[in-house]
Amino acid sequence: MDIKAGLLKKDKRAAARLISMVENGETEAVRIIKECYSMTGHARIIGITGPPGAGKSTVTDKLVKLLRKSGKQVGVVAVDPTSPFTGGAILGDRVRMTDLSCDPGVFIRSMGTRGALGGLSKAANGAVMVLDIFGMDYIFIETVGVGQSEVDIVKFADTVVMVMVPGLGDDIQAIKAGIMEIGDIFAVNKSDRDGSERTAAEIEAMLDFNRNEEYRPPVLNIIARDNTGVAELLELIENHWKYLNESGSFRQKKTKRLRTEIMNIFRDMVMRTVYSLGGGTNIIDELAEKVMERQLDPYSAADILLDEFTKNRKDNY
Amino acid sequence: MDIKAGLLKKDKRAAARLISMVENGETEAVRIIKECYSMTGHARIIGITGPPGAGKSTVTDKLVKLLRKSGKQVGVVAVDPTSPFTGGAILGDRVRMTDLSCDPGVFIRSMGTRGALGGLSKAANGAVMVLDIFGMDYIFIETVGVGQSEVDIVKFADTVVMVMVPGLGDDIQAIKAGIMEIGDIFAVNKSDRDGSERTAAEIEAMLDFNRNEEYRPPVLNIIARDNTGVAELLELIENHWKYLNESGSFRQKKTKRLRTEIMNIFRDMVMRTVYSLGGGTNIIDELAEKVMERQLDPYSAADILLDEFTKNRKDNY
Repeated sequence: MDIKAGLLKKDKRAAARLISMVENGETEAVRIIKECYSMTGHARIIGITGPPGAGKSTVTDKLVKLLRKSGKQVGVVAVDPTSPFTGGAILGDRVRMTDLSCDPGVFIRSMGTRGALGGLSKAANGAVMVLDIFGMDYIFIETVGVGQSEVDIVKFADTVVMVMVPGLGDDIQAIKAGIMEIGDIFAVNKSDRDGSERTAAEIEAMLDFNRNEEYRPPVLNIIARDNTGVAELLELIENHWKYLNESGSFRQKKTKRLRTEIMNIFRDMVMRTVYSLGGGTNIIDELAEKVMERQLDPYSAADILLDEFTKNRKDNY
Repeated sequence: MDIKAGLLKKDKRAAARLISMVENGETEAVRIIKECYSMTGHARIIGITGPPGAGKSTVTDKLVKLLRKSGKQVGVVAVDPTSPFTGGAILGDRVRMTDLSCDPGVFIRSMGTRGALGGLSKAANGAVMVLDIFGMDYIFIETVGVGQSEVDIVKFADTVVMVMVPGLGDDIQAIKAGIMEIGDIFAVNKSDRDGSERTAAEIEAMLDFNRNEEYRPPVLNIIARDNTGVAELLELIENHWKYLNESGSFRQKKTKRLRTEIMNIFRDMVMRTVYSLGGGTNIIDELAEKVMERQLDPYSAADILLDEFTKNRKDNY
C-alpha cells in the first residue's frame, strides 16, 4: 500500500495504517509524516477532557454530528489510558462504531491498549498529525482528565473543552488545579441532575482566580444526551477560535506547542541512542556497577555516557 | 571556607554550606562531591513517607533519638514540597530545632522552599550524598507521599517506612497503589485512635497482592508521640537491612538506584547544553518558528537540535 498516495486520495485505510505505524514507532511513519508535514496546519484541534463519567464521548459525538451537518470533515482521537477497572476504550469505541464510523466524513481512532503513557502521548500526537495531513477540518482529542500524562495530551489542542458533571463530590477544588487551568470552555454536562447550577457556580468561583485577564473561560450547562446546549457549546468553541486569532495568542500557543513537540522528539532520540550504546552490553549497567564499587562517581559516569553518546550518535528515526 | 577539609574534620558548617551549594546548582559543589565520592556508601538511607498528618516528623524524631542512644551519627533531610496551604516545612523545622539540632551527632536539613520538584529531588539526593561523605551512620529522608515526585525522592532509600494513620478515609485503596508499593515497612501511627486495627488489616489485605514472595513488608501499630512501638519499628528496619544483605537484593537495589542517578544527571546535562545553544538567540524558538511556517517538520527540527548539541557539547558541570 502506498500510504502517501493513499492519504492524498483521502483513503481512510491509508490514514488508519499510518496511525498504526506511528503507534508502533515505525521509522517509516516518521519518514512519511516528514514528507507530508507541509500539508498540516489546516485542522482545528479541540481537546475534550474531564473526569471519568462526565460524558465526554457523548459530548464529542454530538459535536461531531453537528459539524457534519455543515459538511465539515472530522477526526476523533479518543485516548483512554488502559485501565483494568474501566475498560472504557472498548465500550466507547463500539458505541461510536455503530453510529458515526460509517460516515465517510468521519475518522475515529481509539487508543487505549498501550502500556506506556509517554508512548500514548506520542502516538496521540502522531495521530493528530496524520489526520491533519489527511485534510480533516476538525480533530477532536478526547481524554480522561485524571493525571499529568492526560493533561500533556490534551493541552496541545487549540481549544480545550472541560466536561464537568454535577455531584462530582463536595468540592470542585478536589479536581486538581493544574487540570482545571487548561480548560478554555467549561461544559457542565448532565445538567438535568441535581446540583448542576451549583457545579457551574463553583467553576465560576474558581475562574475568578484566573490569571488571564483577556479571556475568561465561559461556563455552560448542557445535556449532551439530548443535544441541549450542544449548538451553544460549538458556538463557544468558534468564539474561542476567534479570540485566539484576534488576540495573537494563537500563534504563541502554536509555537509553544511546537517547541514542546520538538523537545519531546529530541529527548526521545537521545534516550533511544543512549539505551542502544555498547551493543550487546549495557553501558549504563556497567557504569552503575563502577559507581557501586566507588571506582567512579555518578557525575563522571554521566560524563562518560555523554562522551559515548556524542561519539555514537545514531541517525535519528 | 575549605569545604572539603571541613567535611573531613566533621565540621557541620561545611556540610551545611555544601548542601546549600548543591541546592543552588553550583558547579563547585559537583567538583567537591566528585572528589569525595569514594567516601560514600557507609550510611544506611531510610525513607520516611506517608500522607500529610500521619506524623512522619514525630516518627523520624523518635527513631533519631533512639539511634543517638547507641551513639549513631544521624542525618535528616526533610523534604516538604512548597505548599502555600500547609507551610509544613517551617513549623516542622522549628519543632526540631529546639529539640535535636543542638545534638552534635545530628544534622537536620529541611528543603521546602524550592519551586521545581525536579530540582528538589536533585537537591535531596545531593544532600544525602553530602551527609554520607560527612560520615553519618543513618540518613533519614522524610517526604510527604502525595505524588510521583515525592516517590522519586524517597524510593532511593534502602528502606522505606510508610507511615499511615487511622481514619484516612473509607478506603485504604484511595492511597495510590504506586505509592503503597514502595513501602518496605508499614507503621500505623496514632494507634490510640479508633480504627487503627482496621487500617492495619486493610494494609495487610493489600499486601496479600504483593508480588515479592521473598519479602512481605511487616505492618506495625505504633504511637510515636509517646514512643510506643518505636523500638520495634527500628528493629524492623534492622531486619529489612539484614534481608537486603542476605538476599542479595541490596546490591541490586543500589545498582538500580545508581543507574537512575546517572541517567538523571545525564539528562540534566543534555538539557542544560540544549537550552544554552545559540548564545543569545534561542535555537529552540527559532526551530519552532520554522516548523510553524511549515518550512521544517518537527522531526527534522529535532535532528537539527541534535546536530547542534553534538557540535556544542558543553563540558559538563
